[in-house]
Amino acid sequence: MLNTPRRFVVVGRTATASDDFLLDDLPGTSGRLDVLLRCVRAALLVSHGLRRDTVIYLVLLGGPRAPRSMRVDGATAQYLRPDERSLAVLVKKSLAVPTTDAGFATVRPGIAVAEGGLDAVVADLGAATPFLLDERGPDVREASFEAPDAVYFLGDHQGFDEATQSRLASMGSRTVGLGPVSLHADDAIAVLSNELDRRELRSTANR
Amino acid sequence: MLNTPRRFVVVGRTATASDDFLLDDLPGTSGRLDVLLRCVRAALLVSHGLRRDTVIYLVLLGGPRAPRSMRVDGATAQYLRPDERSLAVLVKKSLAVPTTDAGFATVRPGIAVAEGGLDAVVADLGAATPFLLDERGPDVREASFEAPDAVYFLGDHQGFDEATQSRLASMGSRTVGLGPVSLHADDAIAVLSNELDRRELRSTANR
Repeated sequence: MLNTPRRFVVVGRTATASDDFLLDDLPGTSGRLDVLLRCVRAALLVSHGLRRDTVIYLVLLGGPRAPRSMRVDGATAQYLRPDERSLAVLVKKSLAVPTTDAGFATVRPGIAVAEGGLDAVVADLGAATPFLLDERGPDVREASFEAPDAVYFLGDHQGFDEATQSRLASMGSRTVGLGPVSLHADDAIAVLSNELDRRELRSTANR
Repeated sequence: MLNTPRRFVVVGRTATASDDFLLDDLPGTSGRLDVLLRCVRAALLVSHGLRRDTVIYLVLLGGPRAPRSMRVDGATAQYLRPDERSLAVLVKKSLAVPTTDAGFATVRPGIAVAEGGLDAVVADLGAATPFLLDERGPDVREASFEAPDAVYFLGDHQGFDEATQSRLASMGSRTVGLGPVSLHADDAIAVLSNELDRRELRSTANR
């Protein structure tokens, strides 16, 4: 299990797929890309380090260049800093690179961009057992994540759109809940990661 | 238990107590106040709402105006937005208000500032059973937080300084760990809040 990366996919219904947003007003000009930037931090950055075993995809469904998707791979990413503006600069530069293909093209170390939304991400994931973070789902602490190819899908501040829900349902996704309070997506990633960290420790200890 | 606010204290060893930082370079000019801003978001903001039962204190030990402390009270706070820049603007305006007293003076709705560091916060807390978030502590899922006046202390990216550690020890603080991976302070708050949400739900259900 330790050899399979931990994979998150955050679907941004309005998050811009182009680089023409203002760093000084992310919430107002980027279709709430700020929500997704915070997810990148929560998924990849820990105290004094980077989770090298984690990959996060951002599905960008907003703005004139949509849909596009971005993949940030902890194994090869460099210069990731936790503050929102630094992450925004990195994503802005990455989105400025032209893309023509539905396959992910590396634009900076550890960062790749593709034309296309969820389809491009699903193609890149390959074998995948999808879990959908949803407050109504059965509790994460009781859930079985035994599949070595688990992938965790999260919505943004608006939740999933219907097309995404149908697509994930057709992939056989199961829902997982995180507790009694509906959380921001980045906090949801923090809580889920903590559960997964605990399970990996137990699985390593049991070997 | 539901009547006692949930209280967090984040000690920023270098976080600036003055308003002369640059919004465009928070990490470089504010002594890493950005770390504390993210804690405010994690403590107070949830999906489509504010935790009205939560208070977070920031102890600001950096810069020429240190030490000062800030209290953000979810019960009365207004216009809290989750993006880091908005939170930085709010804190900048709040720190611009002169303070002369060790007691907390309200400078904006829900936001109060005091002269002094941990001492000012401890005086404001009143009765308090302190818990210190520390990766080496016993696991949060097993911990007893039965004290109705529990307060959770967190360090910044550098951890606690010795003076703070001694002070918290003299208050009889107990350590609590969150799992196998050392987390950013905001993620630590998210994980701890999730545990507390679950306990409150159980305690309500058992009434």
